[in-house]
Amino acid sequence: MDTPANLYTFCANIESADRAVFDAATARHLQLTKPTGSLGRLETLGIQYAAARSDLSAAFHRPTLLNFAADHGVAEEGVSAYPQEVTCQMVHNFSNGGAAINVLTRQADAILMLTDIGVKGHCAFPGVNVQKIRAGTDNIAKGPAMSVEEALAAIQIGIDTANKAIDLGATLIGVGEMGIANTTPAAAIFCTLLNVAPETVVGRGTGISDAQLVKKLETVIKALTINQKRMTDPLSVLAAVGGFDIAGMCGAVLGAVSRRVPVVADGFISGAAILLALRFAPQIHDSLFFSHCSAELGHKLFMRRIQVEPLFDYGLRLGEGSGAALAFPIIRAAAAILREMATFDQAGVIGARI
Amino acid sequence: MDTPANLYTFCANIESADRAVFDAATARHLQLTKPTGSLGRLETLGIQYAAARSDLSAAFHRPTLLNFAADHGVAEEGVSAYPQEVTCQMVHNFSNGGAAINVLTRQADAILMLTDIGVKGHCAFPGVNVQKIRAGTDNIAKGPAMSVEEALAAIQIGIDTANKAIDLGATLIGVGEMGIANTTPAAAIFCTLLNVAPETVVGRGTGISDAQLVKKLETVIKALTINQKRMTDPLSVLAAVGGFDIAGMCGAVLGAVSRRVPVVADGFISGAAILLALRFAPQIHDSLFFSHCSAELGHKLFMRRIQVEPLFDYGLRLGEGSGAALAFPIIRAAAAILREMATFDQAGVIGARI
Repeated sequence: MDTPANLYTFCANIESADRAVFDAATARHLQLTKPTGSLGRLETLGIQYAAARSDLSAAFHRPTLLNFAADHGVAEEGVSAYPQEVTCQMVHNFSNGGAAINVLTRQADAILMLTDIGVKGHCAFPGVNVQKIRAGTDNIAKGPAMSVEEALAAIQIGIDTANKAIDLGATLIGVGEMGIANTTPAAAIFCTLLNVAPETVVGRGTGISDAQLVKKLETVIKALTINQKRMTDPLSVLAAVGGFDIAGMCGAVLGAVSRRVPVVADGFISGAAILLALRFAPQIHDSLFFSHCSAELGHKLFMRRIQVEPLFDYGLRLGEGSGAALAFPIIRAAAAILREMATFDQAGVIGARI
Repeated sequence: MDTPANLYTFCANIESADRAVFDAATARHLQLTKPTGSLGRLETLGIQYAAARSDLSAAFHRPTLLNFAADHGVAEEGVSAYPQEVTCQMVHNFSNGGAAINVLTRQADAILMLTDIGVKGHCAFPGVNVQKIRAGTDNIAKGPAMSVEEALAAIQIGIDTANKAIDLGATLIGVGEMGIANTTPAAAIFCTLLNVAPETVVGRGTGISDAQLVKKLETVIKALTINQKRMTDPLSVLAAVGGFDIAGMCGAVLGAVSRRVPVVADGFISGAAILLALRFAPQIHDSLFFSHCSAELGHKLFMRRIQVEPLFDYGLRLGEGSGAALAFPIIRAAAAILREMATFDQAGVIGARI
């Protein structure tokens, strides 16, 4: 994306979920060898997947988790329990296969694609696609995180990454991130786009103390105040108080759905990216799956506002895409139910008595 | 099991989950490269699995779903939306791979073992282990479902089936059933063992009408009244108002945990089997996982009473073991997290600032 106009055109051209496939998949479920509706949400998930793909056969291949790593200038305010070096160290851990997201993607038979979209430090480890905008955003408590041009470039990297995964065969994309301090920009985005008070969306992230929580709240308020005049539309909100990881995920969501590949959201940070994507292209709503309800304050509020229900609530607050990866097998199972179950006729099973 | 005394001795010898492994697994989680507690329930699930297995390495192999199919004499009261022939027809569908449980076990890389423990009709289809006690129980609205000797024999078949799965390498067992009308005996068991009114546990099963629901409620009340004097302990409750499928699942639960293999419960019917197993051997409690909250009335009440929390609530009301199979990948992921994640030391990642 080189200009806002190009981004808006791209978004306007994204198609919504296929109503005809939705209806046909709903009708097919009535013929499968089970009491009507007896697989509950597993039925609606499969129907949603087929409609998002515009594919009644609900074929499912190469679920891919796109993880975007970046640093955040606001870390210098002391808003995280971890020092900034941990972003790069964790990308190294990802590269070595030792992190939660490695385990969870392996377990789900999923592909993990790592993108350094703005980590401070050398991240050219095996398997890491280095696409640094620059080495971390500026401190949002002191001014904008990035320029609008940088935000557009980061969105484009997200779109490109989704395209690469889809060209390799992915029919489902999950998004995740790594970036010390990134619950702070995510909270600032929620405040602005949902028009809620910081107290309702600023939480403890990876586990900060009471004193740090007060500091974090003050930091978000400062960021919103200092950037207030700059934030006139979703793109300027992203540039002012966002992050490269969030911009990358936002682009990945738009890019995936533009290819009729549905997206699985992770937790709080990916939620901010999803919210931005929904402001750019509201018609993608039914092509999104929401994996879990994060332990982070504000995530529940966000999901209520956009009227979605998470698949599980396990008190996860790790990020990385961990919840999205854990949701892959559930969505795959729902697709397989629609695709593979025998009908009453095929199986020679008598239906219910009327 | 040939005598009640032998059953009670078997149950008394079952060991509870390993406290030392529980503590060691809890300690290990603190060393893994993530903020403390940030994987929430995925952490406690992995710890529970390791403790149940008495294996800190949390090795996970060949998850196996044991499905027990049987008919129920009480079907003649008109308590189900489906005719009795459907039990046998669905076993045929299982054998052909076309049912929901086939799809869900395939998706979970799990083994499906089918046992005809009392279906009315010829069920010797490929892959079906025919171990018929007899062709369906007697009508519980008119007398006992089976003799105590038959109940013991059905429990033994369950134990043997679990042993077979474990001898082949299973480290996790799920239980499920197929049996037209079997929510009726399950409801009668819940009424008796939980000491609750039939109205709180008699539901719509596969989807019966209002008139049928009234009939079903009357049938359960009849069954409880006519069998009242017979029901003096869990074994006589099973014989009086149970079913061969329920007895088989109960035996499978006891057999699996006796070999330190944890069990995943499915929905309402398997819940009745689990409740019986818990009365025989209360110490198995922490070796059980509860997959989902069934749409069937009474299942939530049961789980509250035994103080467990299901993994998901998708409005499933199919049975077969469908919820249990859907839970396999979640438990496998939790075990893999504990087993495979790098520690902070291994990964060279700095821990949280104090």
